[in-house]
Amino acid sequence: MTEPRKIILDCDPGYDDAAAILLAAGSPEVKIIALTTVAGNQTIEKVTSNALRIARLAGLSDIPIAMGAKRPIIRPAVEVCAEIHGESGLDGADMPEADIPLDPRPAAQLIVDTIMREPAGTVTLVPTGPLTNIALAARLEPRIVSRVKEVVLMGGACKEGNVSPCAEFNIENDPEAAHIVFNEPWKVTMVGLDLTYQARAEKPVRDRIQAIGTKPAHFLWQVLEAFAKNYKAWRGFDAPPLHDPCAVAYVIDPTLMEVRPTVINVEIRGELTSGMTVADLRRPAPEGCHTFAALKLDKDRFWDLMAKSVERIG
Amino acid sequence: MTEPRKIILDCDPGYDDAAAILLAAGSPEVKIIALTTVAGNQTIEKVTSNALRIARLAGLSDIPIAMGAKRPIIRPAVEVCAEIHGESGLDGADMPEADIPLDPRPAAQLIVDTIMREPAGTVTLVPTGPLTNIALAARLEPRIVSRVKEVVLMGGACKEGNVSPCAEFNIENDPEAAHIVFNEPWKVTMVGLDLTYQARAEKPVRDRIQAIGTKPAHFLWQVLEAFAKNYKAWRGFDAPPLHDPCAVAYVIDPTLMEVRPTVINVEIRGELTSGMTVADLRRPAPEGCHTFAALKLDKDRFWDLMAKSVERIG
Amino acid sequence: MTEPRKIILDCDPGYDDAAAILLAAGSPEVKIIALTTVAGNQTIEKVTSNALRIARLAGLSDIPIAMGAKRPIIRPAVEVCAEIHGESGLDGADMPEADIPLDPRPAAQLIVDTIMREPAGTVTLVPTGPLTNIALAARLEPRIVSRVKEVVLMGGACKEGNVSPCAEFNIENDPEAAHIVFNEPWKVTMVGLDLTYQARAEKPVRDRIQAIGTKPAHFLWQVLEAFAKNYKAWRGFDAPPLHDPCAVAYVIDPTLMEVRPTVINVEIRGELTSGMTVADLRRPAPEGCHTFAALKLDKDRFWDLMAKSVERIG
Amino acid sequence: MTEPRKIILDCDPGYDDAAAILLAAGSPEVKIIALTTVAGNQTIEKVTSNALRIARLAGLSDIPIAMGAKRPIIRPAVEVCAEIHGESGLDGADMPEADIPLDPRPAAQLIVDTIMREPAGTVTLVPTGPLTNIALAARLEPRIVSRVKEVVLMGGACKEGNVSPCAEFNIENDPEAAHIVFNEPWKVTMVGLDLTYQARAEKPVRDRIQAIGTKPAHFLWQVLEAFAKNYKAWRGFDAPPLHDPCAVAYVIDPTLMEVRPTVINVEIRGELTSGMTVADLRRPAPEGCHTFAALKLDKDRFWDLMAKSVERIG
Repeated sequence: MTEPRKIILDCDPGYDDAAAILLAAGSPEVKIIALTTVAGNQTIEKVTSNALRIARLAGLSDIPIAMGAKRPIIRPAVEVCAEIHGESGLDGADMPEADIPLDPRPAAQLIVDTIMREPAGTVTLVPTGPLTNIALAARLEPRIVSRVKEVVLMGGACKEGNVSPCAEFNIENDPEAAHIVFNEPWKVTMVGLDLTYQARAEKPVRDRIQAIGTKPAHFLWQVLEAFAKNYKAWRGFDAPPLHDPCAVAYVIDPTLMEVRPTVINVEIRGELTSGMTVADLRRPAPEGCHTFAALKLDKDRFWDLMAKSVERIG
Repeated sequence: MTEPRKIILDCDPGYDDAAAILLAAGSPEVKIIALTTVAGNQTIEKVTSNALRIARLAGLSDIPIAMGAKRPIIRPAVEVCAEIHGESGLDGADMPEADIPLDPRPAAQLIVDTIMREPAGTVTLVPTGPLTNIALAARLEPRIVSRVKEVVLMGGACKEGNVSPCAEFNIENDPEAAHIVFNEPWKVTMVGLDLTYQARAEKPVRDRIQAIGTKPAHFLWQVLEAFAKNYKAWRGFDAPPLHDPCAVAYVIDPTLMEVRPTVINVEIRGELTSGMTVADLRRPAPEGCHTFAALKLDKDRFWDLMAKSVERIG
Repeated sequence: MTEPRKIILDCDPGYDDAAAILLAAGSPEVKIIALTTVAGNQTIEKVTSNALRIARLAGLSDIPIAMGAKRPIIRPAVEVCAEIHGESGLDGADMPEADIPLDPRPAAQLIVDTIMREPAGTVTLVPTGPLTNIALAARLEPRIVSRVKEVVLMGGACKEGNVSPCAEFNIENDPEAAHIVFNEPWKVTMVGLDLTYQARAEKPVRDRIQAIGTKPAHFLWQVLEAFAKNYKAWRGFDAPPLHDPCAVAYVIDPTLMEVRPTVINVEIRGELTSGMTVADLRRPAPEGCHTFAALKLDKDRFWDLMAKSVERIG
Repeated sequence: MTEPRKIILDCDPGYDDAAAILLAAGSPEVKIIALTTVAGNQTIEKVTSNALRIARLAGLSDIPIAMGAKRPIIRPAVEVCAEIHGESGLDGADMPEADIPLDPRPAAQLIVDTIMREPAGTVTLVPTGPLTNIALAARLEPRIVSRVKEVVLMGGACKEGNVSPCAEFNIENDPEAAHIVFNEPWKVTMVGLDLTYQARAEKPVRDRIQAIGTKPAHFLWQVLEAFAKNYKAWRGFDAPPLHDPCAVAYVIDPTLMEVRPTVINVEIRGELTSGMTVADLRRPAPEGCHTFAALKLDKDRFWDLMAKSVERIG
């Protein structure tokens, strides 16, 4: 059996981040070696508290968890996303109290230390929130760029945004950070809205999760139900797109998705388009293109993966 | 029978502009009351010379033709589009020498004079090039905005650009002019790439035009063949999209297209997105929305219209 | 005796614009051949009404007066300057009712027509408000650029702005228009705050104007007193800088000022600096530099000129 | 006797940075507790090598020295300043080989660790290069902002730039970093060109340094002579402005300078003005203004300080 892939999960839980943590925790193909937080769906204090509690629920007791950026690098923080994730970031989902202490290091430093400690080419970065910590880490210690295996991120969109016609929430939240991440010469796979809008947690999926009957499954079911309700109210969606686990799923099993090399860059000057991930799908990517866009999801296998992982946590 | 609709055709011929002039000239539903030119596909001198010659070919001997802007309002002129339209703007198409004198007025002034002279609500502006003249006219005499019936323009795109991933040639050429046009409170219908990419002049269409056998038809056939060849070389398209006549066609018969009210604005600050027409297709347009996007074309009826118009010129 | 220099005065009266009109009207060295208005110190309706009334007071009965731009070319209109010029634009100054009809043409068109009619090299443009009309005229008919003798404008600053640390009111009001004007290859002399802050209408100056005793002099005295009061309240200045007549004075007698060739351009993208006239005083201007900055004023001779002109109107 | 003030010197040596290090090393009023480098006058490798060698020369054997940012946070690195500082960054000045090992931490991390370890309110940051490290440190660990005593930086200008009419080299090099530093609520004193242009190392000053006769003095004399020669060639200055030591001097003895509270912000969007430090000297600073501009230098006492410090190193 091959070694599990080592990932650093950088997130802002948030409902779908919670699902991403559970997916990673219950999958033998990957191993979370550090968990870091970033302000996004809620304030840094709230998402960090949520991360600690989900980690306990998921049985992640032996990994460092560090608090990261409380604001974007350059521009003022935008609103948190309370209409989707609630006041706590996880309204309506039962979690244990946290019993794991925070790592004293800032997230970017933990990321740097971890990558520099592990053998080159073995660590995958999986950001599912704004890219502030990842960008800071790359500027703090540029050698990490050639040392990580790859970056697989949830964020962006080739076709249509969510917070604006062009921009997706995570990227628009800190466009300059995203600009840094997409312009460093590491391999970046953008698991964006083009893909994640296909991961809708429909009623049968939610029922299946509920039927598992374990505590983590019950929690995930609560997450999905709350997410469904809020997405219905916000966007009129019948089933909520479970964005963040898609990035984890791609690391676990890349055959779940059609991914295409394509030049992607981030607009940081636009008045209407700031935070847009501009992808050129009109023509084949040039030789050596280091950015990739995930475009099509094998839904059934994705939900199988999700369900089995939660089951496995026990 | 109803009166023909009075249009001012503002263009930069250019192959597809030539086809747009022929379409308008041969359609009893519309009447060109002024023809104006703008730098775009080629320099202002070349497109103006082309306009005069096409006008003669189309039998438009009694209308004022005026030369317009030689450059965008704010930013430096970008390259002309010689790879598509050739050195002359109409390479490979036989035209008579011009015998109509130019109107001495600048295009924007002719536009203003014409609109202010005609009864309010009777003149439709049909720009098929960069929007420089139209924007200048609106700033020169703001009263034209409430006096025109509507603006039906070829330019922009909701989904994908041509000169860049996001931007269409006419809009990117003078984004500030487009910004002015889309932000004035007149009715603006954007017949953009979303629609015009459906108007591909395939071989059977070209053969049909050739078979007409008149001089204007022969000219249009030459235009289509040259356009086909250049689009093949530039973008690999099997058949060239005949953009500009689509705007004229919409004025002739709006039932040819599905058109949707949608908020559209023009990005003028972006680094990667300058000249993008940002349309919000995620949700219904607000009450009173004055901008519209053409999205679906009835191809067969469009080509019928084109063929019959050229035939009618004789 | 030499012919008077023909000027087109483009203004937004406003107190100091009023003084500029009087100065030009009473000076045999210049002849106003057209008077045009632009929104700035007050709305276009108010400044146009003021211009007509001042023209009557100044005996300018035989020149065309045209209304110009009601808003900047690209960006939304900023606030008018009512704290300095009052609700009417000329609060507290007695003017006759207007009895001169407006020219029906938009200002930019009158400017174009006038320059194209007069012999090349004989017309000087003297804008003392936002540069919207001048920029529109240059875009409407680019040939005017080589036909005018020169542009002498009140606006901008090399060192320090007034409406912001960097920007002067006229330029900040329509930075894109100013960008056009400074980048066309005509000779542009910027009579900006560096110079006009030296033209303070101190008490003895105001008394001298009052002592003249004619109706125009009484009006000018009222203008200066109101201006003094408002500048005191707004900026704490003991005496108000009479900006606009300085541009006219430079045309009448260039020996009144030290003027230096220097590269000047206009910032149109800045967040804090939009509308700044960036002048490079660090080094000598390159050969053939077409932009000039007025830096030092012979105050005594300036006020003599002002007083004598008003006297001469009678 | 009072405790010396603890400073972290963040620099890019560079001639005047070298002088700044010597000044700090030889002054009992301050104590360098960490020395960090940043790309600017030369590449990060060269300035770091220079820092290590100058530290040895200055007898700074017991402090951590760390290498920092090799590039600005967002925009591509601009050219180094080889025309002023030479290929090595210190051409023409004799230095010993380095014998101090580099601290393994990135500069920003050393800065954070140092500030968090020392008692709150005791550490002063003295950046004399681009502000990349300082900005990264503030984003990495936001608590440092309230923990440092103050930031005293060399950079910026209220009146006139050097690399452009508006911008000073250090700020223009990384405007976004400077934007971060000026917008955090710590006390920032900008010792910019307004002040440092008064610190010209004229011939008598250089002779006085040479006459000291020690090895560090000889080195400083070489630095000043090379700097003089290059500034003469680049800008025509008769004597070179010794920018960086001015920031250190202000920490040593604030009575050397007139410093004025004034709102200062950094332009990050401008086309002509990017990196400008926009200071509003038109009016008194608002209550609680946290930014200060140094405007006037007591030259004689400054040079006394410089000479005595070098002497003291021995």
